[in-house]
Amino acid sequence: MAIRSFSERTLTAEVLRRVRRAPDARLRQVMASLVRHLHRFVREVRPTPEEWFQGIRFLTDTGHWCDDRRQEFILLSDTLGVSMLVDCINHGGGGAATESTLLGPFYVDGAPRLPMGSNIIRPGTPGAPCEVSGTIRNARGRPVAGARIDVWEAQGDGLYDVQKPGGLNARARFRSGPDGRYAFRCVRPVSYPVPHDGPVGKMLRATGRLPMRPGHLHFRIAAPGCETLVTHLFVRGDPYLDSDAVFGVKRSLIVEFRRNRNGEYAARYDFVLRTAAKKTSRKKP
Amino acid sequence: MAIRSFSERTLTAEVLRRVRRAPDARLRQVMASLVRHLHRFVREVRPTPEEWFQGIRFLTDTGHWCDDRRQEFILLSDTLGVSMLVDCINHGGGGAATESTLLGPFYVDGAPRLPMGSNIIRPGTPGAPCEVSGTIRNARGRPVAGARIDVWEAQGDGLYDVQKPGGLNARARFRSGPDGRYAFRCVRPVSYPVPHDGPVGKMLRATGRLPMRPGHLHFRIAAPGCETLVTHLFVRGDPYLDSDAVFGVKRSLIVEFRRNRNGEYAARYDFVLRTAAKKTSRKKP
Repeated sequence: MAIRSFSERTLTAEVLRRVRRAPDARLRQVMASLVRHLHRFVREVRPTPEEWFQGIRFLTDTGHWCDDRRQEFILLSDTLGVSMLVDCINHGGGGAATESTLLGPFYVDGAPRLPMGSNIIRPGTPGAPCEVSGTIRNARGRPVAGARIDVWEAQGDGLYDVQKPGGLNARARFRSGPDGRYAFRCVRPVSYPVPHDGPVGKMLRATGRLPMRPGHLHFRIAAPGCETLVTHLFVRGDPYLDSDAVFGVKRSLIVEFRRNRNGEYAARYDFVLRTAAKKTSRKKP
Repeated sequence: MAIRSFSERTLTAEVLRRVRRAPDARLRQVMASLVRHLHRFVREVRPTPEEWFQGIRFLTDTGHWCDDRRQEFILLSDTLGVSMLVDCINHGGGGAATESTLLGPFYVDGAPRLPMGSNIIRPGTPGAPCEVSGTIRNARGRPVAGARIDVWEAQGDGLYDVQKPGGLNARARFRSGPDGRYAFRCVRPVSYPVPHDGPVGKMLRATGRLPMRPGHLHFRIAAPGCETLVTHLFVRGDPYLDSDAVFGVKRSLIVEFRRNRNGEYAARYDFVLRTAAKKTSRKKP
């Protein structure tokens, strides 16, 4: 038996030889690409053992900050531009459909179902009252009735419900009307910092970056025959539109939040959903 | 103000522009390299949103498995060949010095200090009795007196003390004698699986890899004026020498564990320490 010793020059080839035994073709591809790029990174920065251990500790801390209410690895992915890159790769098609942007770490499946026009804000919540309305249409321009619309946002203090005690607030699920229309009341979105009391906050500070996101309202819109749309509406004029800590802004998603005579705000946006890819309909018998 | 929307083509440049603001030059270099290679990996595998989330969940689980006694991120680094790559980068110099290999996840700072010749094994521990001895010399061939020698190993059942209840066992700290000699009693190292009940074990199974390591004894040897040596001695003839799950075997570290007439084993190894790099002595006034 020839016992091999690996050198910096020969080690990567051996790791690749091992991960290429994966029976699943996609896993084989992902693992081989991961090993190649990870090793190239290490070869390029040539970490000392102490730096390597600092990296181990950073990843461990990031994992320890994750729980039911906080997803520090999503935040890391967001702040390193990885989440938006995955978004661009999957939804970069262009065309007439509404552009997507990232889901973020604050989506909650199972928000309260409210009737059209309801206020998603509980009384006493900080923030300026606001109405948002518009239509949901498909790629052929037809109104989409009964689309499931999830909306969520930070409150006037810049915090999401899951970042403080008091239960669900400033989030809801609606159905679009027979004419494809939707409408609800909320608070005008404000700019806020992403959670920066954990490892990702340390990384942002160490690299001289601001944790700020421009004010925005989250949407997730699902309807049969359409591709599910995950996106935001951003507030025109927000000072952080050009320095979003998670690179999520797209010009077409910036909306005027107009102040009415009664001092309340109103915004309108018409969403256009893409036709679902074949892959989804393959599930049907 | 020109609000930019980023595409798959332009996003990486913007993320790089942001991380290059880091005031610390080394951090700037590491972050820029990380972003370039991470984005190249994502661009190459083109993950679906579901695959991206699978990655987030894998990292989160790996973090949640880490505690005082288990370091799943080190295990991940070990099994992806990253730890050995860092070792090769830092200690790949060749020459007469003893070759290094990885620290592994089971080192404990503060093992019991024992006098020369002691048994590091508590009575009743599974395994075949064994004596290990030899000398510690410096790069000029002189015996190193008073070197601090940490040794640790899995017991005859393939488990380290920290993997089961019962306190510290099969690990100790010695000092080399005035003639540079060391000697202690232990159990003959056996091949064993790395911990594979967590996310790394899942990864190994999914890629069709065995979790096995060939039998080995860990050493960490520190002495003034010398580079600290982290290494193993491997058992000649072990069936896993050529398929170590963490790529740690080096030919020069394979040692005969000879069976004596009394049925006990004995191994000899003479260590040669490298002269400490300038960096270490810079600390002196």
